[in-house]
Amino acid sequence: MRTVIEHAWVLTMDPENTCYKDGYIIIEDTKILKAGEGPAPLRGDRCIDAGGAILLPGMVNVHCHVPMIPFRTMGDDCQDRLRRFLFPLEEKAMTPALVYWASLYGIAEMLLSGITTFLDMYYFEEQAAEACDKAGIRGILGETVIGQKTCDSKAPYGGLIYGEEFIQKWQGHPRITPMVCPHATNTSAPEYLQRTFALCEKYHTPFTLHASEMDYEMEEFSKNYHMTPTAFLDSLGLLAPRTLLAHCIHMTPEDLDLVAAKGASVAHCIGSNTKAGKGVAPVKGMTERGIPVGLGTDGPSSGNTLSMFTQFRLFASFHKTANHDRSLFTARDIVRLGTAGGARALGMENLIGSIEPGREADLVMVERGSVNMFPCYNPYSALVYSAERANVSRVWVAGQELVKDGVLTQMDLNEIRRRLWENMGDFIKKSQEFSAII
Amino acid sequence: MRTVIEHAWVLTMDPENTCYKDGYIIIEDTKILKAGEGPAPLRGDRCIDAGGAILLPGMVNVHCHVPMIPFRTMGDDCQDRLRRFLFPLEEKAMTPALVYWASLYGIAEMLLSGITTFLDMYYFEEQAAEACDKAGIRGILGETVIGQKTCDSKAPYGGLIYGEEFIQKWQGHPRITPMVCPHATNTSAPEYLQRTFALCEKYHTPFTLHASEMDYEMEEFSKNYHMTPTAFLDSLGLLAPRTLLAHCIHMTPEDLDLVAAKGASVAHCIGSNTKAGKGVAPVKGMTERGIPVGLGTDGPSSGNTLSMFTQFRLFASFHKTANHDRSLFTARDIVRLGTAGGARALGMENLIGSIEPGREADLVMVERGSVNMFPCYNPYSALVYSAERANVSRVWVAGQELVKDGVLTQMDLNEIRRRLWENMGDFIKKSQEFSAII
Repeated sequence: MRTVIEHAWVLTMDPENTCYKDGYIIIEDTKILKAGEGPAPLRGDRCIDAGGAILLPGMVNVHCHVPMIPFRTMGDDCQDRLRRFLFPLEEKAMTPALVYWASLYGIAEMLLSGITTFLDMYYFEEQAAEACDKAGIRGILGETVIGQKTCDSKAPYGGLIYGEEFIQKWQGHPRITPMVCPHATNTSAPEYLQRTFALCEKYHTPFTLHASEMDYEMEEFSKNYHMTPTAFLDSLGLLAPRTLLAHCIHMTPEDLDLVAAKGASVAHCIGSNTKAGKGVAPVKGMTERGIPVGLGTDGPSSGNTLSMFTQFRLFASFHKTANHDRSLFTARDIVRLGTAGGARALGMENLIGSIEPGREADLVMVERGSVNMFPCYNPYSALVYSAERANVSRVWVAGQELVKDGVLTQMDLNEIRRRLWENMGDFIKKSQEFSAII
Repeated sequence: MRTVIEHAWVLTMDPENTCYKDGYIIIEDTKILKAGEGPAPLRGDRCIDAGGAILLPGMVNVHCHVPMIPFRTMGDDCQDRLRRFLFPLEEKAMTPALVYWASLYGIAEMLLSGITTFLDMYYFEEQAAEACDKAGIRGILGETVIGQKTCDSKAPYGGLIYGEEFIQKWQGHPRITPMVCPHATNTSAPEYLQRTFALCEKYHTPFTLHASEMDYEMEEFSKNYHMTPTAFLDSLGLLAPRTLLAHCIHMTPEDLDLVAAKGASVAHCIGSNTKAGKGVAPVKGMTERGIPVGLGTDGPSSGNTLSMFTQFRLFASFHKTANHDRSLFTARDIVRLGTAGGARALGMENLIGSIEPGREADLVMVERGSVNMFPCYNPYSALVYSAERANVSRVWVAGQELVKDGVLTQMDLNEIRRRLWENMGDFIKKSQEFSAII
């Protein structure tokens, strides 16, 4: 099966930032065969005229908790919400069915906004994997290991047992990488951080956790260990090329040096970090040291949109302002973070993140017909400074067209919402116990 | 003519933040007759079932340069672009026809994103007024007075003469307030700042200018006058209730005290200020002092979207982060800034900005059917943290429905774009002189 797309403004995001203003792409089955300027040299079983739309690699979301859709717009402006109601409510109210339908909904939202690969960490990841399998998206799915009772384990650290079974069941899936991940530096005992890392090594998966995110986390490590969380992870042998540190808001220059020296990566979640008033991670210091950085939407309750466009715009504004330099991180640099940068942070740069022969055919088309997309001298600027979810017109994952004309091709969004809503009654009832704070 | 809207989630933004979850609004000709909970007590010539959509006052954009549409995506990441290419290119290339079609395009974009009132400052404002008149939006339109040659005046300060004729011609229009405005604190000589203010007094219009925005502006005032721009304006007698200071990024506590004491207002443009890396205005200090603050998109080349949703999201993230407090400025506070707050900053709070009997029927309906709008426990959170332009379904100005199902009812967007594009050839040719920097 060969699909030929012509008359697209192709942003390949290859190492040279090659760009074809009136370009073509040839998809052969699940992979990209060729891309270039002008008319395509081969005909396809299917030919698509992009009519000048922007075509870029599918966007890569390196940090998410997709099953948290039911929490969206709940207690957004509430202080210390993680401990005050997110943890207790999810422990009481999340069920496998709710995780399944919420994951399917959130995956639909990601596809509709041009995200074709996401890394998730939550509970009942078995159900997240089922949703991922059904929806056709690419997922790196981590069962959470945490030192407290959770919705899917009465015993602390139950995620380790659940997780190994989960990995064994799903390993080898063409689009799904099952894994385990500690929740955070301060919510698993050191021994369990190491045991979780060992499982990731055993099964050759990434190792990810929340790190250097919370004020109180920083204080705890300073008080208990006289170390930063980064130095502490290193002392346990947990900084490695497979390590993806989520957030990294509070990092010293020495922390950044350590991360760079050990070849670890960072998942930067500007939307969630700043909505929570936590701070701005020092991304300039990261990229200067060559640390791979990808962008994460975080969960729908923390970041609210599952759209990379929100991250793009916030990233530009925050890092230019933090460094008082409007020329720092050009729009092209930012689009790179959301595509090839994310792929590199996940260790998947030979598979996804750029439009090059042999890469998976994960692609996003962004139309230029809507009012906010004109004029467009610079397509990177349009993507970063004016585009939004609704400008995404078509999406392919592994050559399969999952979004067409801004609508899902394989699933019915209204039906997913209906089923999700049916499963939310008990969740909403239980949320009312927290009504004084949310 | 009476229109009745039922089954809407009505956010009145009245002083008590009254909200009707299954509410109605009755529009009588150009004004709001009544709003409340439950079924409407009167029938209309036209009845609309909102189906649970959010209905709020039309959004108020207190700072814009709408004719700058042709510049969008041009040199976004270029340092000092105002002096390096914006000023010279607009002086060379802007024409009345280009201003007319660009204004019509930008106004269309604002209507489609739920903005029903905007304050503009540019050149050839005669043409902006014609576009405003045709489009049905509400505009406060200022001809710029500046101490240099411009596209509409060979002599410096030509805007004063142009402007008074412009005011005389358009005064009394039901939706248009013509005015004059100095460009900035440092681009008009003090005498001309005062003469412009005197014209605004004579014709009872707002007085607005860029103030405390630029690093070099701050340095110039410090060096030349040993004063801040705010103290300097006050020394000239130019801080008054009619004064609307745009940007106010670099403000001392004393500056804020002065602005508050004199009853002046602030147009806060978080999107443009931060994209340019300039800084974050101290809005907490402003609202604590009772200074009226509205939100501005700034021009389409500075802010890139003409959507208040972009400002909402950036406002939340920046001010929560600057103050390290996620509970500061709730989503409801932020929606207020974009509606009633803007109306108050313009001195129009008895006319627009809230849903109350007797106010103009300027209304926006935001649908909740799209993927990013579910769930929605808190409609303010949905508007601030997840909504985007494309969620706007209907817009009324003075009772006239200008947007329906996300499409303009009175104008053809494609035709406007075609005519604008026809007028952009010379502009684009002249922009190529600056190709080394953009």
